[in-house]
Amino acid sequence: MAAPLRLGVAGLGTVGIGVVKIVRRNAALLQARTGRAVTISAISARDRSKDRGVSLKDYAWEDDPVALARRDDVDVFVELIGGDEGPAKAAVEAALATGKDVVTANKALLAMHGQALAEMAEAAGRQIRFEAAVAGGIPVIKALTEGLAANDITRVMGVMNGTCNYILTRMETAGLTYEEAFAEADGLGYVEADPTLDVGGIDAGHKLTLLSAIAFGTRPDFGGIEIEGIDRIAIEDIRAAADMGYRIKLLGVAQRTGRGLEQRMQPCLVPDTSPLGQLQGGTNMVVIEGDAVGQIVLRGPGAGEGPTASAVMGDVCDLARGLSLPVFGQPATTLEASPRARSELPAPFYLRMGLLDKPGALAKVAAILGNAGVSIDRMRQYGHADTSAPVLIVTHKTTRSAIDEAIEAMRATDVVTEDPVALRIEHV
Amino acid sequence: MAAPLRLGVAGLGTVGIGVVKIVRRNAALLQARTGRAVTISAISARDRSKDRGVSLKDYAWEDDPVALARRDDVDVFVELIGGDEGPAKAAVEAALATGKDVVTANKALLAMHGQALAEMAEAAGRQIRFEAAVAGGIPVIKALTEGLAANDITRVMGVMNGTCNYILTRMETAGLTYEEAFAEADGLGYVEADPTLDVGGIDAGHKLTLLSAIAFGTRPDFGGIEIEGIDRIAIEDIRAAADMGYRIKLLGVAQRTGRGLEQRMQPCLVPDTSPLGQLQGGTNMVVIEGDAVGQIVLRGPGAGEGPTASAVMGDVCDLARGLSLPVFGQPATTLEASPRARSELPAPFYLRMGLLDKPGALAKVAAILGNAGVSIDRMRQYGHADTSAPVLIVTHKTTRSAIDEAIEAMRATDVVTEDPVALRIEHV
Repeated sequence: MAAPLRLGVAGLGTVGIGVVKIVRRNAALLQARTGRAVTISAISARDRSKDRGVSLKDYAWEDDPVALARRDDVDVFVELIGGDEGPAKAAVEAALATGKDVVTANKALLAMHGQALAEMAEAAGRQIRFEAAVAGGIPVIKALTEGLAANDITRVMGVMNGTCNYILTRMETAGLTYEEAFAEADGLGYVEADPTLDVGGIDAGHKLTLLSAIAFGTRPDFGGIEIEGIDRIAIEDIRAAADMGYRIKLLGVAQRTGRGLEQRMQPCLVPDTSPLGQLQGGTNMVVIEGDAVGQIVLRGPGAGEGPTASAVMGDVCDLARGLSLPVFGQPATTLEASPRARSELPAPFYLRMGLLDKPGALAKVAAILGNAGVSIDRMRQYGHADTSAPVLIVTHKTTRSAIDEAIEAMRATDVVTEDPVALRIEHV
Repeated sequence: MAAPLRLGVAGLGTVGIGVVKIVRRNAALLQARTGRAVTISAISARDRSKDRGVSLKDYAWEDDPVALARRDDVDVFVELIGGDEGPAKAAVEAALATGKDVVTANKALLAMHGQALAEMAEAAGRQIRFEAAVAGGIPVIKALTEGLAANDITRVMGVMNGTCNYILTRMETAGLTYEEAFAEADGLGYVEADPTLDVGGIDAGHKLTLLSAIAFGTRPDFGGIEIEGIDRIAIEDIRAAADMGYRIKLLGVAQRTGRGLEQRMQPCLVPDTSPLGQLQGGTNMVVIEGDAVGQIVLRGPGAGEGPTASAVMGDVCDLARGLSLPVFGQPATTLEASPRARSELPAPFYLRMGLLDKPGALAKVAAILGNAGVSIDRMRQYGHADTSAPVLIVTHKTTRSAIDEAIEAMRATDVVTEDPVALRIEHV
């Protein structure tokens, strides 16, 4: 019988407690499947006295996660602290330096320091596993790194921030304004302490960074993502999109182009009947396209105690079984520094603006679009009570830079009263 | 630099040629990801002279797949011959006996002989990998065996036979009869030489057998599946289902119950707006439910050159990387022989029958249902030209045995002109 695999768990929030519960509840099953017992030696969190609804007295306590990471009775350091600096980073480094493998749910840490940490781990012959960092319970890292390893991956897409999707879904189904939906999500504890992590698209951008690195064999490059949050989405956009058969989702897309790696995380319109369009609330979806496989779609819960702990413990099972892989699927030293490409793949766009209600205003805007080479597919002007009329335009396929050029020119006129919102329309 | 991993590929149909193409086209990528070259040493097929559209002159030829399996220059035997007996089985046994790992797309072989082959492989310290055997390009075996390994799996479901789904989709979208849709699928080469493998639900049943074994830690038990094909589905059923907001799918379900393992592969009604209901043509979908993760849905191409070869080569990558797992996720000798449970979980049912057009006929049927404890939710009698009236009934939740009891009693009357069709309604 193989020796037990001993975990040190740092961070006892929702996910940490989920991990403790699985280790206890499914102990027999974990042993049957991995051939060895999986146990917890020691734990660490900020507040020892807090009642977490589960007895922790069997586990040694460390106030300092770095001390936990260094313990001799820990084989795998499970990092559930969060944050891209501070104790999480220090503890992961300490774990690697003292010969432990690491399992983490920390997308920020790996998006910002993944390259250095992966090199450190691989030089030490250790692993960092992070299934839980992307799309919660969906085993997408494994699908991409292993199951689809024989494919030249052509595109990766995903709706990967449950908080944003919750806000957008509530705006659509309950007719709430952005501010109301945000307040509701915040009240339910769905929003991070720094809300821009969620609604600013940063959290989802961290996740896309990790998927890109694996998919394309490139160094994780969070700075290369064109990021746009959902905070400029108005209830009018939601309604207009619905009128035209679309829903608005914070969608991440990464693909390799002749000009380099294109990565974007932006609110987009997707057809309401498409799998992405039908995603509700906190459910995540990742779409992977490869030269051999075609398109694979993975859907599941993107967050929460059980799903995220399932992903953490899936990684732990891999380690218990002795399965060994480079952090990003190929040795970190072989990952390429890909040039960053601004997204130029043509798509139709949705434009919303306020126009001064006076003769010639619409003609001015139409001329500007024409000059930028943007042709109009559909246009709607809505009824209004004041001197500014809301105008919606759906363009034929065009590029982001043509749209930006047109918006720049519109701002320079005296007829645009509200800064135009431009959203890409994705037919996936 | 590690030594190359050398494949012997037996069977050069669609999938075999797909494998050859990936090995060539993605050679650099396979080496970057696995750390070693993946090469083909030798091949085997029935007809050496056939033009397969790709040059095979670099590979040694064997007429006999068993001889191929025994070659010293083969590390991994890739079995793409098919069939649960004969050369496929003999060659896999020869490969294991001479120290090779096996990658196969052969669901029939493993559904019928998986237990013995897995024990043989594990006793020899070898592996059998079969991602390509279930749901084509979807990495579902990996998701279940590894990604979700920490879960107590509660249910596995899937639409996993593209031919059946093609036929059902064509009946629905083009209004074809079953016979017409079957002939069309046959003309396109979608139907196996023995059509009952497809339309009889056997192929999909083989796949469910493999998923069950992994999910529940039980011995593969194809004989324990309640199998029903799609050949009794009439265009009237498709239309009536559509009228009521349903689509008909050949759906496999496996779950553990207090009475034992319940496995069924049957045409079912599913809501037309559900992910399963929206599957078109050859696309497959697998739904996995676990105690921690909740529900995961995986969708992708269920067959074809590229997708199936992607799955075969995903397994090859695992072997090239030195990843080692028991065939069914835990040692074959520890798999339980689970008692077979007939499906008794309550569900609404759809019933279609022909009734003699005379007073009291419907009353007789209604009384029979009542006596069996089956209550009627909706009933429709359609217009008709002869002496037999088509009658459709949707029941409230009831059990399969109550339905069977009622049908038995109906057959004994003199008013039922057409043997009733009963389909379960699944709200997934």
